[in-house]
Amino acid sequence: MRAAVMRNRQLLVDEMKAPEPEAGEVLVRTVACGICGSDLHALKHFDQFTELATGMGSTIDPGADLVMGHEFCAEVLDHGPGTTKQHAVGSLVCSVPMLLRAGAPLTVGYSNLIPGGYAEQMVLFEPLLLAVPNGLPADHAAMTEPMAVGWHAVEKAALTADEVVLVIGCGPVGLAVISALKVKGVSPIIAADFSPARRALALKMGADEVVDPAASSPYDSWRAAAAASKQGERAEANPLTGERQLPPGVFFECVGVPGVIDQMMVGAEKGCRFVVVGVCMESDPIRPLLAISKELSLQFVLGYSPEEFALTLNNIAEGRIDVAPLITGHVGLDGVAQAFVDLGTPEKHAKIIVEPGRS
Amino acid sequence: MRAAVMRNRQLLVDEMKAPEPEAGEVLVRTVACGICGSDLHALKHFDQFTELATGMGSTIDPGADLVMGHEFCAEVLDHGPGTTKQHAVGSLVCSVPMLLRAGAPLTVGYSNLIPGGYAEQMVLFEPLLLAVPNGLPADHAAMTEPMAVGWHAVEKAALTADEVVLVIGCGPVGLAVISALKVKGVSPIIAADFSPARRALALKMGADEVVDPAASSPYDSWRAAAAASKQGERAEANPLTGERQLPPGVFFECVGVPGVIDQMMVGAEKGCRFVVVGVCMESDPIRPLLAISKELSLQFVLGYSPEEFALTLNNIAEGRIDVAPLITGHVGLDGVAQAFVDLGTPEKHAKIIVEPGRS
Repeated sequence: MRAAVMRNRQLLVDEMKAPEPEAGEVLVRTVACGICGSDLHALKHFDQFTELATGMGSTIDPGADLVMGHEFCAEVLDHGPGTTKQHAVGSLVCSVPMLLRAGAPLTVGYSNLIPGGYAEQMVLFEPLLLAVPNGLPADHAAMTEPMAVGWHAVEKAALTADEVVLVIGCGPVGLAVISALKVKGVSPIIAADFSPARRALALKMGADEVVDPAASSPYDSWRAAAAASKQGERAEANPLTGERQLPPGVFFECVGVPGVIDQMMVGAEKGCRFVVVGVCMESDPIRPLLAISKELSLQFVLGYSPEEFALTLNNIAEGRIDVAPLITGHVGLDGVAQAFVDLGTPEKHAKIIVEPGRS
Repeated sequence: MRAAVMRNRQLLVDEMKAPEPEAGEVLVRTVACGICGSDLHALKHFDQFTELATGMGSTIDPGADLVMGHEFCAEVLDHGPGTTKQHAVGSLVCSVPMLLRAGAPLTVGYSNLIPGGYAEQMVLFEPLLLAVPNGLPADHAAMTEPMAVGWHAVEKAALTADEVVLVIGCGPVGLAVISALKVKGVSPIIAADFSPARRALALKMGADEVVDPAASSPYDSWRAAAAASKQGERAEANPLTGERQLPPGVFFECVGVPGVIDQMMVGAEKGCRFVVVGVCMESDPIRPLLAISKELSLQFVLGYSPEEFALTLNNIAEGRIDVAPLITGHVGLDGVAQAFVDLGTPEKHAKIIVEPGRS
């Protein structure tokens, strides 16, 4: 089969042996697979990435081929030994990108032992497969994984009714967070990004107000929105200063670039909570004294539970989350390397879907 | 009156004009005032300190004299205009180190406009005064402020019954955290410090186990204690790996030195919460990916509420917290500069009390 392979820190297309399903596994044909920012990070910061993956008990051999791709929708081709054949050959499925072999988890898309979604075929773990409902197109179903990341972040935020949110960064992660906030009925949703195209997408996904940080402070917009919110209007004046206390803020960090957390700390009000969803692969200097002086809290989040993943697939299939605006391109395997380059330009793209069957 | 003054980034003793109580204020004689790690930081990192104080709306003029000292017990000398004279002349009082002038708060010990506790006299805000109960010695009462910091940190931690704690650093902040955990009945309490003297104090304040990080990993000790805890023994095995899930960890950062938070992130288990009480005045590099991969959360905390301060004074006065072991020295104003030096040696000292009336 063909695959877009990361070899010697380069992406190239090559032939490779198709995987064979072991016990409990299903062989699938990859129909659609989104390119994730983490894959871009992994290519760019390969050493840190493999080092950390190893530290997390994963097994990425930097000298071996790696086929990435963990945001996929696939068609069942064959069932391995010891499977229940619950999903018929020809049916479309999604899955948490995880596979259990000999009781040890492998991450589909970040393992040298199995190919990810930038290959024509994969093996998946049958108990984790979810049928794609409602005739949902495969490229929309492939958006389940990134949208589940946003859903999980909002779940972990455990927002209370009096908190007012701000989303910093409207790349795929920020847009997923906005969509989850919208489904949960959170209002207002303020979002910031330097890119006009990303701000337009943020509005489409449910943001009530978008801010260009080059033109004005997202934190000032947040303060104004917080003061004007129902919660802000109900707030009592501080007996010492006479100022009306703003409702507490919850800021979602969806950029993942060094310095952003510190900037957010400067912009935040006392007692603000940050949910850090953006994956910063580099060392990031923060000023603890700044965080201490405002009693900030930072919740770092990762991934999602299988339940959150399944719920997100349903939210997409039933139209509660419209992922169509996010999909800005489709490429075959030969287009993967260029797509990685193109995704560096936020004006042009949000999510590019790889279709290994596309010529 | 005499005072130990910070002038041109040096501590020296000089004569200065005694303060005069304005409306709502009381003139007091400083009986005892603890030297806080923040004062050492302020002297050492003066530029960052004044910059941040200014950013926080405070008013420290780097060119003007500053009399520090915010952990005090004092004797009432006189009542200013518009006071209720609730505390008689001659009575011992403590206070949150805060004063409202024209509705604006001044921090006693970090303002050029009023002297702190390293002076023979201060003015305090009458509504914030607390009578020292039970004939508690003044030096013990002066420990209210640092112990309240630990109490507040443990309050903000909002520990659940299944969480197991680890205290990193057994200076005055760490020891205050340990004492609060003990009063609240938290068990086991694991604490780590490189200094044998500090570890001995940690045991006195209520730690169940102390670790020398030079000899063994505090995180391994935490893991062993967590596994052996009632919560750990009740825990169910992970259905995927067969490993018994450890109860969640809550780690108190009580060091305040760059690199410690990152080290704690390396040592932590998934889902661990950090409460950052140590005041790190410098920029501190963290690796967000490490925090993300374990879904860690960081709560930064500062100070205490007036209620927490009053409760802490009561805890000391009624013997629930014995502060005697923490007081390792007493000096007069002439000994303050040397005391600042001596406090750099953890083997020798925990808390030095300044008694301005001491010759």
